[in-house]
Amino acid sequence: MENISKSILSNVILPRKPNSYKGNYGRILIIAGSSNFGGAAILATSAAVHSGAGLVTVASTPEKFTAINTRIPEAMTIDYHNKQLLLEAIISSSVIAIGPGLGTTSVAKGLVKTVLNNTATNQTVILDASALTIIASEKIPLQTTANIVMTPHQGEWQRLANLPILEQTVSNNFEALEHLNHDAVLVLKKHHSEIYYHDQVSQIEAGNPGMATGGMGDTLTGIIAGFIGQFGFSLDTISAALLIHSIIADQLNEKHYVVLPSAIIRKLPKYMARYSQIESED
Amino acid sequence: MENISKSILSNVILPRKPNSYKGNYGRILIIAGSSNFGGAAILATSAAVHSGAGLVTVASTPEKFTAINTRIPEAMTIDYHNKQLLLEAIISSSVIAIGPGLGTTSVAKGLVKTVLNNTATNQTVILDASALTIIASEKIPLQTTANIVMTPHQGEWQRLANLPILEQTVSNNFEALEHLNHDAVLVLKKHHSEIYYHDQVSQIEAGNPGMATGGMGDTLTGIIAGFIGQFGFSLDTISAALLIHSIIADQLNEKHYVVLPSAIIRKLPKYMARYSQIESED
Amino acid sequence: MENISKSILSNVILPRKPNSYKGNYGRILIIAGSSNFGGAAILATSAAVHSGAGLVTVASTPEKFTAINTRIPEAMTIDYHNKQLLLEAIISSSVIAIGPGLGTTSVAKGLVKTVLNNTATNQTVILDASALTIIASEKIPLQTTANIVMTPHQGEWQRLANLPILEQTVSNNFEALEHLNHDAVLVLKKHHSEIYYHDQVSQIEAGNPGMATGGMGDTLTGIIAGFIGQFGFSLDTISAALLIHSIIADQLNEKHYVVLPSAIIRKLPKYMARYSQIESED
Amino acid sequence: MENISKSILSNVILPRKPNSYKGNYGRILIIAGSSNFGGAAILATSAAVHSGAGLVTVASTPEKFTAINTRIPEAMTIDYHNKQLLLEAIISSSVIAIGPGLGTTSVAKGLVKTVLNNTATNQTVILDASALTIIASEKIPLQTTANIVMTPHQGEWQRLANLPILEQTVSNNFEALEHLNHDAVLVLKKHHSEIYYHDQVSQIEAGNPGMATGGMGDTLTGIIAGFIGQFGFSLDTISAALLIHSIIADQLNEKHYVVLPSAIIRKLPKYMARYSQIESED
Repeated sequence: MENISKSILSNVILPRKPNSYKGNYGRILIIAGSSNFGGAAILATSAAVHSGAGLVTVASTPEKFTAINTRIPEAMTIDYHNKQLLLEAIISSSVIAIGPGLGTTSVAKGLVKTVLNNTATNQTVILDASALTIIASEKIPLQTTANIVMTPHQGEWQRLANLPILEQTVSNNFEALEHLNHDAVLVLKKHHSEIYYHDQVSQIEAGNPGMATGGMGDTLTGIIAGFIGQFGFSLDTISAALLIHSIIADQLNEKHYVVLPSAIIRKLPKYMARYSQIESED
Repeated sequence: MENISKSILSNVILPRKPNSYKGNYGRILIIAGSSNFGGAAILATSAAVHSGAGLVTVASTPEKFTAINTRIPEAMTIDYHNKQLLLEAIISSSVIAIGPGLGTTSVAKGLVKTVLNNTATNQTVILDASALTIIASEKIPLQTTANIVMTPHQGEWQRLANLPILEQTVSNNFEALEHLNHDAVLVLKKHHSEIYYHDQVSQIEAGNPGMATGGMGDTLTGIIAGFIGQFGFSLDTISAALLIHSIIADQLNEKHYVVLPSAIIRKLPKYMARYSQIESED
Repeated sequence: MENISKSILSNVILPRKPNSYKGNYGRILIIAGSSNFGGAAILATSAAVHSGAGLVTVASTPEKFTAINTRIPEAMTIDYHNKQLLLEAIISSSVIAIGPGLGTTSVAKGLVKTVLNNTATNQTVILDASALTIIASEKIPLQTTANIVMTPHQGEWQRLANLPILEQTVSNNFEALEHLNHDAVLVLKKHHSEIYYHDQVSQIEAGNPGMATGGMGDTLTGIIAGFIGQFGFSLDTISAALLIHSIIADQLNEKHYVVLPSAIIRKLPKYMARYSQIESED
Repeated sequence: MENISKSILSNVILPRKPNSYKGNYGRILIIAGSSNFGGAAILATSAAVHSGAGLVTVASTPEKFTAINTRIPEAMTIDYHNKQLLLEAIISSSVIAIGPGLGTTSVAKGLVKTVLNNTATNQTVILDASALTIIASEKIPLQTTANIVMTPHQGEWQRLANLPILEQTVSNNFEALEHLNHDAVLVLKKHHSEIYYHDQVSQIEAGNPGMATGGMGDTLTGIIAGFIGQFGFSLDTISAALLIHSIIADQLNEKHYVVLPSAIIRKLPKYMARYSQIESED
């Protein structure tokens, strides 16, 4: 399997054009969080903001707004129980990430369906965490014409693809993905995460066991959302998001036994500058 | 069009007099925030506090007080639904900034009218974001005798001046501004923002596309409010506020792909010291 | 008038004894905050904690507990509407500071009376801000046998002592203080703050106009409380608290146009180490 | 009494295996916090997260969720009033720490009993603060087959062991511990804390009086929980947790008069890296 090369970062993280506006860098909607999992919404949102997304809105339960406002005043909020507001937000967003800390209540199930039923070409839907669990348990078909990115860890992929971890071979993964949605991207999170898209598969060499801690996946989801919002949906964009997440973590891990998601998030603007062409031309 | 020179900064950001009190540095009222836009109130308030304003009060919805207290314990709060308290706060403030994250509900509309109806000479009213949208949609006349500063981005200016972006030429902007209020200052936020006042127009050369992210305008509004509170209403004061906002952002952008509003805010006290005469005499 | 010498700092901030416990460093009760003034409670509490107080409890309105917990997890909270809990807290505290952000409602008035009626020798009561306004307006006699420290700024002292600012001469201040309570310490906050106690008066030379910003007094109150809790009630202790507050502010002001209270608070542990005998013997 | 050697740190804090997951590093449940003691839950949780625990859940009162989410988005929350959820969390956790800021209400008493009645071999229960007070006052037998760690300070041990501080000799402590639970570990917090387990007793030489401040014990509890979650229950693991807590504090105390618990927590990932074999082999 091919490793993703670091050179992808400067190809993806292009310098911004002088005459550009926040609307040029994506409208991201992150549908996340529930009473017991408020932190996941914060981490995903904060990661999207720090990765440079133009406008970030979190749809969550209102009891989490204060923590979100406090940690990321740059983001907006909406109550995901408000169907009309939510629908307007979905329709007007370029990237919708759903799942971190969402739980598997009937409200959460309804949210997953609403997203899949109301998105279309030119939008990207990122399915993570609880959203994947719900799709597996409810056997919800991935019928949207939007671009789809799924980011399961191995246990979630087992449920989604009906593939025990030991049987998660490249060919089995391709077959299961084909079965779920021919055009979806699969980001399979594991030691050396793999990315599947159409007939291509590649692998991340970066990453370290200091990343084995709660919230790491929520953070990755936010970065992928931010990257697609800015750089467009493509295999390269998603690969670059994974790579920068792990590269920052590797750097932190040199001096930190555990790599906290919030520490990775804080470093995003600097690492992106370093890899963007602006920097590489210096 | 003339560029605003950096020399304006030391002219405006004067060293404070030894025997002075917080009352000498402005009483700022920031009317901002609503259920879904709590972060805007935080950023505008925090910017005003970090820019050196003497006393800063946020009028907002009480559900946002906890986030405001946590992020900026230096600020006071009032509930903008409490008409009497609000009126007292408006009357006793030297600078009233209204709009960031306010939304366009009937409550918000009432707040805009209350401000315009209850301010007078020697006060400054800064109209931003939702306040400008409301003024445009409700055709509210800008009849206060207070100084007026409007800070629309191009889309807001389009609605306010009835000028499509491509027709936002200098002469059209002057004409529209004259029509809205002869004595108002227009800060037109764009790539190289422009400032219009009476027959003068100037431009900011500083600024970068890393600033194209949510919350950047709320932050600018807070800095303008803080500057007018301390240095008095003048074209120079407003120009200096814009300039320092962009200069800090440019410095950050050298090493940060995206320039987060909260990062700019944190740097304000140091950059102001650098440009104040105290520093330049060293 | 004599200036307070920096040498007082090493005399007061003694190195801690190896075999000592948090109970040796004061039980501080800070009665502060109300719906619109939550930040004052945070700043006073945070200052007390950072100054080294052993145990700090804030009595406030419960709607402020989340912001307090978030900013200063080291502090405990109680609801000041709960009379029994409050009384127990007052009785078991060595230092009670009342006033920052308290407001002047009937609840606040009741709190001031409760403190004055339920404290005794060996305790210290610090009266600040709203507490002073209430004492002036309600003509509440300062009859407690506890040590009393009052920390008015000139406007509060005017109301309390019935002395217009221009008439706040040393001899008038002594007379008014004698009239209020013969044994109270008066900290008169102004450009070069003055401390009156019995027949002594001294002055702080440190301090700068960058400190002219909201929350500065709340912070000083917290430091005084923390210092008395650790080093005992004395003129020297109070003088040292004032001095370190201004010395840190002066250092910050060299590079910061405005000196934010929260910036001073963060520096307390380092500056105290620098002046404690442990450090000076190095 | 033998001093715990620093060499224990590299023996315990092993480098993580490349192919490992958060599930390998412990599921920690921290049952903590109540209306007036919210900070304790934050400190214990934050310490567990920063010490590298794989998954950390706080069971607390929901009014504390916002502060917990804001300070430690990496942690999950559950409402400890929800008996079923709590029971599921207890059963699925490898380490349960109960007590910080819990208070001694009937709810708290019920929680202590629920933990002791629903844990078993292969789990560790850490009893701290209010939990110890409740066990003493309610004479709750320590009958769980789970590993038990108790972390009283001398006052709590006095109540628990019925031993006045002056009578807390090594032999009396052994006898009392034997009486409470033959297999429990006793961490007796004092100047030079002592650890008792079966017939062994050892002592921490590190530590300083700057640590005599509120929240220090809550922090230690979180570190012990995180260490056991990662490195397994053993005398060495617990000793290493105590030692790193004090070593970081000693380092901070060189330049900080008071050592704040939150400052220790922030340093954990770096200090652990320094002592892990990865680092020591460099």
